[in-house]
Parts: sequence; C-alpha cells; structure tokens
Amino acid sequence: MVDRGEEQAMRAAIAASEQVRGTTSPNPPVGCVILGTGGEVVGVGATRPPGGPHAEVVALRAAGERARGGTAVVTLEPCSHTGRTPPCTDALVEAGIKRVVHAASDPNPLASGGAEVLRAAGVEVRSGLLVDEVAAGPLRAWLHFARTGRPHVTWKYAATLDGRSAAADGTSKWISSAESRAEVHRIRARVDAILAGTGTVRADDPHLTARAPDGALLDRQPLRVVVGDSDVPATAKVFDDAAETIQLPGGDPRAVLAALADRGVVDVLLEGGPRLAGAFLAARCVDRVLAYVAPVLLGAGPAALGEAGVGSISQAWRLQIEETTMSGPDVRISAIPQES
Amino acid sequence: MVDRGEEQAMRAAIAASEQVRGTTSPNPPVGCVILGTGGEVVGVGATRPPGGPHAEVVALRAAGERARGGTAVVTLEPCSHTGRTPPCTDALVEAGIKRVVHAASDPNPLASGGAEVLRAAGVEVRSGLLVDEVAAGPLRAWLHFARTGRPHVTWKYAATLDGRSAAADGTSKWISSAESRAEVHRIRARVDAILAGTGTVRADDPHLTARAPDGALLDRQPLRVVVGDSDVPATAKVFDDAAETIQLPGGDPRAVLAALADRGVVDVLLEGGPRLAGAFLAARCVDRVLAYVAPVLLGAGPAALGEAGVGSISQAWRLQIEETTMSGPDVRISAIPQES
Repeated sequence: MVDRGEEQAMRAAIAASEQVRGTTSPNPPVGCVILGTGGEVVGVGATRPPGGPHAEVVALRAAGERARGGTAVVTLEPCSHTGRTPPCTDALVEAGIKRVVHAASDPNPLASGGAEVLRAAGVEVRSGLLVDEVAAGPLRAWLHFARTGRPHVTWKYAATLDGRSAAADGTSKWISSAESRAEVHRIRARVDAILAGTGTVRADDPHLTARAPDGALLDRQPLRVVVGDSDVPATAKVFDDAAETIQLPGGDPRAVLAALADRGVVDVLLEGGPRLAGAFLAARCVDRVLAYVAPVLLGAGPAALGEAGVGSISQAWRLQIEETTMSGPDVRISAIPQES
Repeated sequence: MVDRGEEQAMRAAIAASEQVRGTTSPNPPVGCVILGTGGEVVGVGATRPPGGPHAEVVALRAAGERARGGTAVVTLEPCSHTGRTPPCTDALVEAGIKRVVHAASDPNPLASGGAEVLRAAGVEVRSGLLVDEVAAGPLRAWLHFARTGRPHVTWKYAATLDGRSAAADGTSKWISSAESRAEVHRIRARVDAILAGTGTVRADDPHLTARAPDGALLDRQPLRVVVGDSDVPATAKVFDDAAETIQLPGGDPRAVLAALADRGVVDVLLEGGPRLAGAFLAARCVDRVLAYVAPVLLGAGPAALGEAGVGSISQAWRLQIEETTMSGPDVRISAIPQES
C-alpha cells in the first residue's frame, strides 16, 4: 500500500537527490527520506561524494532513534554489497526500519538484490513509486551508465527556427535568450563533464564553465573535455584554472566515452560544435537531444548539426519528443533518439 | 453586461465563421448567432460568398420573427455601408434586435461606425467579447488586409530539428508526420491562395491542392500562384484542372501581393521554397510563420530558409512565438515577426 505521505516523501527524496547531482559520480545521486512511526519526516539525506556515505545512511543518521519502526523512502533500491562503504541494507535493518519504498530498481548485478536482502530480514519492500520521474530525472544518466557501461550523453544546442547556430559572418551573440543561457549554466553545474570539439574551442574560445548570470563561477564545475587532434593554444580560456580540463583524441566517440568512464564520468553534456555532434550522433552516442530553438530566422550561416552519416531521408535520425516547454521566448525541446 | 450565454453564443458564431473561411474574400468570414428574448439560440449564420448576404442577414433570416427583442452576437462589428448588399445595421434594426454584442471592431473607414449607427437607433451595443480569439483566428487575415491593404501571408514550412527541408540527396518524403501533412491540407482549403516559387515547382512538381489523406481533392481549392520568371513546363501538376493557377513575376514580393489583392485575395499561404520565403521575409511580407518541426536530424541537405537579407546577428529576423503545440510527433510553432 502506497499512501500520499509516502509519495510526498518520495518527492522530497527526489528534491534532495537533485541537490547532489554532479557530485556523486560514479555513484548515483540518490535521495532518501525517513518517516517515523507516525508517518512524520524524521530524516532526509542524499548521496555524499565518492567514499562518503550513501543517502540512506545520511538520512538514518539524521533520524537517529526516531527511525526505529519507521519507513525509508528512497529513489533507488538500497545496495546490498560492500563497496567503499558497507551495504545500505545492513544499515536500514540495524536502524530498525520496518518498510522500504524505493523508486528505481538497481540494474547493477553487483548491487542488486537489495530488496531481497531486506525482505529476508523481515522488512516490507515496495518498489516503483514515482519510478518514471526518477528514471527520467536525477537517476537518468546513472541508470544508463549502469545498463550500458557508457556515460549518458546529452547533446545540447541552441539554434534559430531555421536551424542555424550563427549568422553568415559568424556572429551568434545572442541567438538564445538570457533565460535559456542561464538554464544551460545550471545544467552544466549538475553534469560530470562538458565536451566540445577542438574546432569550436579554436573558433569561439569558450570558457565551458558553469556561471551565474553575473559571470561569477558557480560552486561546482564539471570536467572540461576538448575532443580532437588539433592543437589548441595554451592561452585558450578552456585551459584556465576555473576547472579541470583534459584533451582526448577525436575520431571515435565510443573511445572518448570509454576514457571518460574510466575517470568516473557518468553524465556528459555535449556542447558542440556541429562536427563533433554529427560524429557522436552517427556513432549512436547521443542519448538525449536538448534543443533551445530561438524565435529567430537567419536564412544563412552555419548549421547547428554537421555531417551525421545521413545521405538520404531513409537514413535520417528519428527521435521521439519527450517534452516541449518555453524557456523565456525560446522553445526548449527534449528528445530521445529512437533505436533504428 | 456580458453573460455566459453570450460568450457561448460568440463561440458558436466563431465556429460558424470557421466553416466559411476561404469562401468569402474579399469579404470577411463572419459568424453570427441570434439569441431570442429568453437567451435561446434562434438563428445562426455565416458570410455567404461575395455578392451573397452577410452573416447577420443569414442569421436573421433563420431566426425570423423570433429575433424581435433579441440579441445579435457577431464576430465583427456590423457594417453600416451599402456595398453589394445593404447595410447590416439596417437589417438588425428592422428585425427588432435590441442588443448587439460583437468581437472585433471594423477598422475599415468605409464600413466602420456600425456600432454608432446602431446606438443611434436605440440598440444596446457591446464590443470586444472574445476579440483576441477572433482577431488571432478567423478574422486575422481580413483584419490585416483591412488595416494594411495587403493580403496576410503565412509562411508555412516543414523542417527537421536541424532546420533542413530535405536530405543531402534531395529526398524529403516524409519529414513531417501524416498528422502535420493532413493539417496543412485542411489549412490550404481555408486560404485564398497558395504561393510557391518557380524553383520549387520545377524541382518538386507539387500539386498545391487541398487533399484528403486518401488523395481525394477537398471541396474547396485555393488559387495556385507560381511566383518567378523562369518557365514552368506546361505539363507541371500545378497546371492541371484541379484548381485555378496563375503565374506572377518574381523579384518584388509587394508587387506579387498587390496583384493578388486586385484579385480579391486576402489570405495567402506561402509554401516555399527557401528562396521565395527568404525574399518575402526580407521584404517584410511575412505576417506569420507556421513551422512544423519534425523530430528528425539530418546533418546535411538543403535549409528550409534561404537568403533573407541577414548578414550579421544584429540583422536577424526576430519573432514572437504565439503558440507551440504537438502535431502528432512534430512540434508545431506559430510565430509572428516582430517589427524591427
């Protein structure tokens, strides 16, 4: 039986997990709320950075003795294996938790079985509460990584209604709105890495940091990844000390992602340019497209997407639109490439 | 005082006017509902083709004696001038109508003053009910025409998320969805004329008719207008007998629109190609952009919009989005060019 209090608690757990996105990889950003025997919230927690406690343990510590006989509401099935920290299932049982409600199940063969371990210890377990919201939201990248071994890639671009990323003379400040640009900076602060091609870095000299509208750096900065074999001047902004930067060879998007996975990167924001985006799309290495379509027409200028292996309409990359919303004056489209 | 019954009646009047779109130009497609003294609907009417009665007269005839003491709810201020038909204000007064509720006011200096004439005859007049809906909907093109003397131009295009109208080899069947294509055919049946450039006609040999999904011609066909100076083969589909077709010289979009206005054309659907659309945009002859953005990525192929007089971002054509809706799997964006 799932009651409204548990759904409310799951929403609080999701909110807690959103706060730690970008700080937990390769671990999942999980949120947990402990409800006391009367259904009141007695503890909230989210995954600490790698090596630190998982969400359940953080929430249990906050709850203390009030957890006994209570319910743990958690965005992901509790782990039952010993990694850098002891199993969460043990911690829940020891704290006297009688019921566990989780959203997503753990697809990781090493960690899964948490629900079974809990049931064997006499804990009531219910799975699937708000799982769609969690799987499309805070745990999306990590679930993809757990299933495929590859970091999740969101290709983000801003373009005009006619698909251009700059005017004929190369000017592009600004195509998308201040609202959209601010949102992109907030997204950057929640991913593990930002990718850009050497061509874009040489042409536009982007900073690739997460900044506030006033230009100040946000607290969290993703790894900056320059992809390609051309030399980038050491004076490029991307090599300043605002965040860590690495350069990886181009050519094979899967090799790029494997190198990033080795560094614990789970959630990647691919920011262009058109050539790198085309290569990733052609290699089926784009898991989500996030387009900021500005109500602007140019009629000339570079396209947002370059060569992607499509010669004829039958080879087109087809997507499914997840959501269309307004971002200030722009249309923000989130879409998922379909398996073909 | 506007009551719910009158708002409901205005919605019925709008619906009646939608039925006659594409058949009334150069007259406006107006709808009228007559309410009896008890507020019940006693007559509904819409503008008949040129030379025929206006909506008010059609509705009054339907109502007969039941109109006496009643209310006329009409999408446009009743005319007070004698054109091919006598003034509607006379007909309303003679029928004993006590109250007139209209949405849009008539911007036409020859016809306006209807409300004043009615008031002078002792009729209570209220204007503005659902005016935004009417002005953005059935009377949009006609109000534009009445204000500017130029037909209203909607540039409709279908493109991929990356702004392309075909793949690299020219194939484009199908980029937009069956739902979007069916909607475009329904729109064609409600406009006065469809425009396409000679380049598009020569390259794609489009039929430019309004058809049902099974290919059958719809009851109403707009004038087909081929714009440009190149020769088009007499065997082109656009010259078949499914609808009337004319060719106009290219070069000056304003001259094209003036020639169409002389023929009584008020509502124009500009269907491309990229060059003609760019020329119309550059000449400020696009009043609305209707984009069907398909969830497809190509990375190569012709752009939906060609040269539009924009060299640098500061010269970009900026629009305001009116509405974004889904059309099957596609995103349908309606936008208005901003005055610059």
